[in-house]
Amino acid sequence: MVKQEHIDFLNSYLPFLKKMASDDREEFFNKVVLKYYNAGEIISNNVTCSGMITVYEGQARAYIGSSTGKQISVYRLLEGDVCVLSASCVMKNLTFDVTIETEKDSQIIVLPSEAFDKFVKNNSPLKDYVLAIMSQRLSDALFLIEQTLFSSFDKRLAGFILEQASIEGANTVKITQDTIANHLGTAREVVTRMMNYFENEGYIELFRGGYKIINNVGLSSL
Amino acid sequence: MVKQEHIDFLNSYLPFLKKMASDDREEFFNKVVLKYYNAGEIISNNVTCSGMITVYEGQARAYIGSSTGKQISVYRLLEGDVCVLSASCVMKNLTFDVTIETEKDSQIIVLPSEAFDKFVKNNSPLKDYVLAIMSQRLSDALFLIEQTLFSSFDKRLAGFILEQASIEGANTVKITQDTIANHLGTAREVVTRMMNYFENEGYIELFRGGYKIINNVGLSSL
Repeated sequence: MVKQEHIDFLNSYLPFLKKMASDDREEFFNKVVLKYYNAGEIISNNVTCSGMITVYEGQARAYIGSSTGKQISVYRLLEGDVCVLSASCVMKNLTFDVTIETEKDSQIIVLPSEAFDKFVKNNSPLKDYVLAIMSQRLSDALFLIEQTLFSSFDKRLAGFILEQASIEGANTVKITQDTIANHLGTAREVVTRMMNYFENEGYIELFRGGYKIINNVGLSSL
Repeated sequence: MVKQEHIDFLNSYLPFLKKMASDDREEFFNKVVLKYYNAGEIISNNVTCSGMITVYEGQARAYIGSSTGKQISVYRLLEGDVCVLSASCVMKNLTFDVTIETEKDSQIIVLPSEAFDKFVKNNSPLKDYVLAIMSQRLSDALFLIEQTLFSSFDKRLAGFILEQASIEGANTVKITQDTIANHLGTAREVVTRMMNYFENEGYIELFRGGYKIINNVGLSSL
């Protein structure tokens, strides 16, 4: 049983909880446990099967590793982010060779696999949520394929971000992503995705209505 | 309204139909339509939104394309295979930059997006099925990332040559090196060089517009 502060946290980050019957929600809160990880610890891989995880504090990433030790991050998990691939053992006939590893000392709220399995089977709001997350991860993965194989828009956007900063004479730039999309002849979603990617890579920091360049050299090298 | 043979086909390939209420199933069969495509036609991309598709006859692939015309196949769709990314417009805030294209003259059974949307919202067996398919596609995409980043090209090409023969059910396969390059996300020259190497090694025999496998074991051992 987790503390009230964790329950409040879950209520604010997991939209499906509101839609669950109160009995189910109660059971959900009874089943989750809080776990502590040091930076660099493995939360889950294709051998372990921890369950559905929510980052309460800290940061983690999902990566694919090669037999030769190379790695690539598929997505990052920040405060409030949820990962269901860490419960993939409950999905029949599927293996995801993905490792979930903390990037900082972290507190992780875990819904164990058996409980997750039962909830997903019986609970439609959670099922909807898992479907949405799976779709999001698939979108992330396809975007990553595109990036790694064909990268082109990243260069254009990086160029634009630097040019705009040079025009403003400041590293902090106020501009909406809609406006950027209109400058570059693309859709806002595409800009949003790439800006988020740049933020994850540590090139820029996003704020409402703008961005701040924090790694000029990194951006320029694109 | 499709014919009885199409209904029989759907019943045998779509496991969720058995679990649907008979009214829903009836409605499902009323909503699906049969469409004809020539080889190389686009069934769906991020602009169109055809709905959930099932391959009745023929063959298709889902690929990511670059602005410079490079392509890579993410997964193939054979007889009885289902694609839901072609209905991705019903998924909120998500874009999948994936194109679904026929590889052969094909007959495709389409459940239009609005009907798909309604069914997924209200129907649990279909929701389970969509979740399973999404998970499968995510698994495919992660595998592809692993392959393209961490596996040498000779292994990937050998895998493709064998897979293609298995799809065709024959050791002699008619396919251009351009097409192979578009499946594997590389340039034709790279394919040509490796195919010539494979021929020199006695794994395959090349002819205009195709290849014949002559050392299956050798190729597999790669």
